[in-house]
Amino acid sequence: MEQSVLLTGAGGRVGTAILDDLAEDYDWRLLDREPLTGEYAETHDSVVADIVDETAVREAIEGVDVVIHLAGDPRPEAPWDSVLRNNIDGTQTVLEAAVDADVEKVVFASSNHAVGAFETDERTPDLYRVHDEFRLDGTELPRPGNLYGVSKAAGETLGRYYHDEYGLSVCCVRIGNLTKDHPPVDYERGQAMWLSYRDCAHLFDRAIEADYGYEIVYGISDNDRKYYSLERAREVLGYEPRDNSAAHE
Amino acid sequence: MEQSVLLTGAGGRVGTAILDDLAEDYDWRLLDREPLTGEYAETHDSVVADIVDETAVREAIEGVDVVIHLAGDPRPEAPWDSVLRNNIDGTQTVLEAAVDADVEKVVFASSNHAVGAFETDERTPDLYRVHDEFRLDGTELPRPGNLYGVSKAAGETLGRYYHDEYGLSVCCVRIGNLTKDHPPVDYERGQAMWLSYRDCAHLFDRAIEADYGYEIVYGISDNDRKYYSLERAREVLGYEPRDNSAAHE
Repeated sequence: MEQSVLLTGAGGRVGTAILDDLAEDYDWRLLDREPLTGEYAETHDSVVADIVDETAVREAIEGVDVVIHLAGDPRPEAPWDSVLRNNIDGTQTVLEAAVDADVEKVVFASSNHAVGAFETDERTPDLYRVHDEFRLDGTELPRPGNLYGVSKAAGETLGRYYHDEYGLSVCCVRIGNLTKDHPPVDYERGQAMWLSYRDCAHLFDRAIEADYGYEIVYGISDNDRKYYSLERAREVLGYEPRDNSAAHE
Repeated sequence: MEQSVLLTGAGGRVGTAILDDLAEDYDWRLLDREPLTGEYAETHDSVVADIVDETAVREAIEGVDVVIHLAGDPRPEAPWDSVLRNNIDGTQTVLEAAVDADVEKVVFASSNHAVGAFETDERTPDLYRVHDEFRLDGTELPRPGNLYGVSKAAGETLGRYYHDEYGLSVCCVRIGNLTKDHPPVDYERGQAMWLSYRDCAHLFDRAIEADYGYEIVYGISDNDRKYYSLERAREVLGYEPRDNSAAHE
């Protein structure tokens, strides 16, 4: 039987990349703060709710096997009050409801901004170039480059807690720079952490299917310029990226 | 000239341990949600304010050199709404105000609960015993044992951000089990992470005086049973603990 998956923030860019490739593969329930438009709204079960509305979130989560939690304020420059509420409190609401509803897995959209402050003046721009061997692998302590990144790191720690305390499987994906069709042009940082739409869908597909306890993985294509390791994503999830920003330079 | 130090949560246990030994050593400003009682209230500048009252916090912080930030909900079993507000939002309020007031250093009272879930069934009770060689040294990712611990880990990440972004010196002290006079009796965990009052005061004294950028240190006495490393506290802060719970067994 198809697994049922709640997708929060379904109307955003990551949600779109996932649905473009996986719409037919799961029994989706789509949640967004705004009514969804387009084909997926017509063909799938959908819910309009704010992610901090505990009652609505609990109702939406009831009966699903997996939650992909993307909802939140996606702006790197978002102010504290917004990320505190939407990203930190919102993620706690989802995790708590997931445990209470006996969900198996939560896949959490974390961000490269959780570790953005590793990109110091001393390291850049070399960090974004092929010869540079510096790598982050997800075992390092977060160094957020903004308050949005702080909120994503907090979401990861919440995931760790809900895994340790309740046995929930949690995979945090530190999403890079997701763009359609081709990598950012004239932007080395974006090329280093490019995530193509199809690699994005494939990565979340693997996160739905694979067995794990608690994981932090980097969500990027196999870019020559990368400074994020893909080892955990490959080993634990079976991620096999097909794209590389170098092919577009 | 004496350094001026704002002590938030001054009326709590950690604040008391600090003031008992250091009342005469700094120009203190004491802040607490409740009016302070006892000798320190009479002899020191004090402010009654909630830690999430941004205006009051900004006023209290104006002109001080260092902030020791202890205020927050101290209960390991505190509910999410309380730690979200008092511990996470409260710490952001303090750090933001500290940057704006050109404070040099913030010393943040983190907690052993930020890493409490390392104490798994497989590791305990051996973890609390002298022969066991497992050590946490502050470079490991947090594994909170409760939502209070999640809030403390989030406070540490906020500190990392305000250090990286604004150059604020931040020291996070993962405080162990602080008790007066003698370590907990018949409680191996408490003996492993005991922090005596005088070692507590000395550690915060060193955190006021030493030079550092961003640090996470463990705040315990030099207990034979310890599984937290004291290396960073010794090396960076010059911490020289005088107590050991083994002397009381």
